[in-house]
Amino acid sequence: MSLQDEIIALAVAARQAARHLVTMTGAARNAALYALADALDAQRAVVMQANAEDLAQAQRDGLAGPMLARLTLTEKKYAQMTEGVRAVAAQTDPVGETLAGYNRPNGLRIEKRRVPLGVVGIIFESRPNVTIDAAALCLKSGNACLLRGGKESIRTNAALAQIIGQALPQAGVPAAAVQVITTTDRAAVTAMATATGYIDLLIPRGGEGLIRAVTASATVPVIKHYRGVCHVYVDAGADLAMAERIAVSAKADGVSLCNTAECLLVHESVAATFLPRVAALLAERKVELRCDARALKYLPTATPATDSDWGAEFLDYIYAVKVVTSLTEAITHINTYSSQHTDAIITQDLAAAERFTTEVDSASVMVNTSTRFADGQEYGLGAEIGISTDKLHSRGPMGAADLCTYKWVVTGSGQIRV
Amino acid sequence: MSLQDEIIALAVAARQAARHLVTMTGAARNAALYALADALDAQRAVVMQANAEDLAQAQRDGLAGPMLARLTLTEKKYAQMTEGVRAVAAQTDPVGETLAGYNRPNGLRIEKRRVPLGVVGIIFESRPNVTIDAAALCLKSGNACLLRGGKESIRTNAALAQIIGQALPQAGVPAAAVQVITTTDRAAVTAMATATGYIDLLIPRGGEGLIRAVTASATVPVIKHYRGVCHVYVDAGADLAMAERIAVSAKADGVSLCNTAECLLVHESVAATFLPRVAALLAERKVELRCDARALKYLPTATPATDSDWGAEFLDYIYAVKVVTSLTEAITHINTYSSQHTDAIITQDLAAAERFTTEVDSASVMVNTSTRFADGQEYGLGAEIGISTDKLHSRGPMGAADLCTYKWVVTGSGQIRV
Repeated sequence: MSLQDEIIALAVAARQAARHLVTMTGAARNAALYALADALDAQRAVVMQANAEDLAQAQRDGLAGPMLARLTLTEKKYAQMTEGVRAVAAQTDPVGETLAGYNRPNGLRIEKRRVPLGVVGIIFESRPNVTIDAAALCLKSGNACLLRGGKESIRTNAALAQIIGQALPQAGVPAAAVQVITTTDRAAVTAMATATGYIDLLIPRGGEGLIRAVTASATVPVIKHYRGVCHVYVDAGADLAMAERIAVSAKADGVSLCNTAECLLVHESVAATFLPRVAALLAERKVELRCDARALKYLPTATPATDSDWGAEFLDYIYAVKVVTSLTEAITHINTYSSQHTDAIITQDLAAAERFTTEVDSASVMVNTSTRFADGQEYGLGAEIGISTDKLHSRGPMGAADLCTYKWVVTGSGQIRV
Repeated sequence: MSLQDEIIALAVAARQAARHLVTMTGAARNAALYALADALDAQRAVVMQANAEDLAQAQRDGLAGPMLARLTLTEKKYAQMTEGVRAVAAQTDPVGETLAGYNRPNGLRIEKRRVPLGVVGIIFESRPNVTIDAAALCLKSGNACLLRGGKESIRTNAALAQIIGQALPQAGVPAAAVQVITTTDRAAVTAMATATGYIDLLIPRGGEGLIRAVTASATVPVIKHYRGVCHVYVDAGADLAMAERIAVSAKADGVSLCNTAECLLVHESVAATFLPRVAALLAERKVELRCDARALKYLPTATPATDSDWGAEFLDYIYAVKVVTSLTEAITHINTYSSQHTDAIITQDLAAAERFTTEVDSASVMVNTSTRFADGQEYGLGAEIGISTDKLHSRGPMGAADLCTYKWVVTGSGQIRV
């Protein structure tokens, strides 16, 4: 059997499981989630041992520090992971919600009802906790899933798969509802991406390389999160004390995250006051500024920016800084260089805020708050399956409801259309 | 300039226009639609002349009858087209609707607000009225569009493009908001399908060949409508008089439409009563029945079905007929052979209706009414841009709101996240 056929066989089994999942109540799916959390608690030692073996292998393979950090399941991360499953179980059930419902003049009752997508594929890199997060969100939303983690976490994932495979069937969920693909063959990714009709949605989670590889070959629908190149624009009408606090925090309080600000835009009319003050605060936080010619007038000792600094995702203690002469210039800069993830304006001017929120074409547009709040938990969606920088289906932080589609349920009393 | 570069240049101009469209009020976009309808009325003769030339060419090229019918703009079709524009103008504005809005414990106000997608590409075949329908729906929803019709309707489309190009700028809409691609080079389709980042959504409307060609090459998001293979299931608990009326109408009152029933499933317990009666009515309507072995017991003179009849989109006076021994068998048959467009159950049994609507995985699921009602107008969505058989973004009939995405607008008072 070819790898493609193997993946399709898994997806066919997942479809069968998905057909069963739609017949289960939300309470039954939640009970399975609590059972999974309990099983994870009970078998922590087994998983930690497998993770230690993965880590030892990774060290022998000379993996880089950040990769090792992502691969490592600490006691704290493990506890967060199991608590995360319980938190997902406690969330509102997205399945079955009536999104619209009305009667038509001919007496037909039309209902647009949220239902699971069916079979969801998740492809991720070294973080083994994604295995559990993704499984929990898919089960919550009534979907079967195929999970394909990175080869570095293969032993940890296999241990987690075994726990899932025991806990779920005991709670009445078919074993094929959550299947962990443990082959390390990279062709499995392409096989998933081309399983049209078998997989309803594919979500790649990881670096840009992975996402581009999946997207290039995909014929199944993909929702992706490419990059977070977020901007903070300090408007002429800004409260400058607030602007300082937000501009500093959005960069320095979580420097390597996708919702971190990478570029600070400052209106010319406040630049002379604002820039020296914020530069001093950022210097304390060890943030390097890369300034355009106008900003350099106020910060003559800063590094000049180059063209490649606009639109760059530094994920580091580096801030591109640009002085703009108008709100229009700020909006145009953002619509040119932003990754359409999250952009913020700081202003007390209502008209400026309205123009910014209307004209900036990004998934999240913040007014007088930090880009760092772009996050499923912060938006009250519960656990997050990812943050979409696409515009179709879901945009911005995605929760369990984003793993659903809808169907139209039309109820009549014999109506025909001639 | 290569064709790919030409298409991208059009898309870049469309993006600029889209940036302007988001700043226009709904009233201003509606005024432009009314102006377009008036201009179409005023210049009907010019369009009809161009259409006559397209038709003459098509006849010289020996085009088939159905293709000629689709290409022909009759006076009635023309009037429907201009009235359609006014009807779209009169619809509720989908843009700006708050889809969710709430305050978070930290005082942040979160709003999920419907906004235009940006640049929409529509690829269609010979029906020139699609040019106007699609332009109107895109403008209504605040989107710029690139419209690529079939080569058969090139003169008609050019005439329509000229009217659009005059009417819209006079009403304050940038000319690039609606661009009609008049090259007959088929490579334009591929160029559109691969214009990642330039086109936000591509909708192919036409035959399966077109849709498959677009999907195979597409790297931009595509929403497609492949096929309508719809089922009517007559349950053990059906009101048989109602079942007869629906089963006959769903096939015979519009035989070549995507929401036409292609397969009639009948529960064994009512087959002896129902099948001879419905067969007599269908015979009057010249419908050929292709029956499975169990159905042949009750209709011994009917044609035996072959395997290829299950899941076939006949678009003709042909009905596949199968007797099932249970509701489960009916659901399994539908989930195996349906194109997930629209499937109906006829029953007075509430539990059967609930199981059917829950377990049948189709965009529209009808209870005691005809599959033929699966339609944007019938669902109260106004004019329809298509019927999606996909599950992502939009499913089933798509109106102007389906040409939108959303953005998260988050308003704070200086909150930071540390």
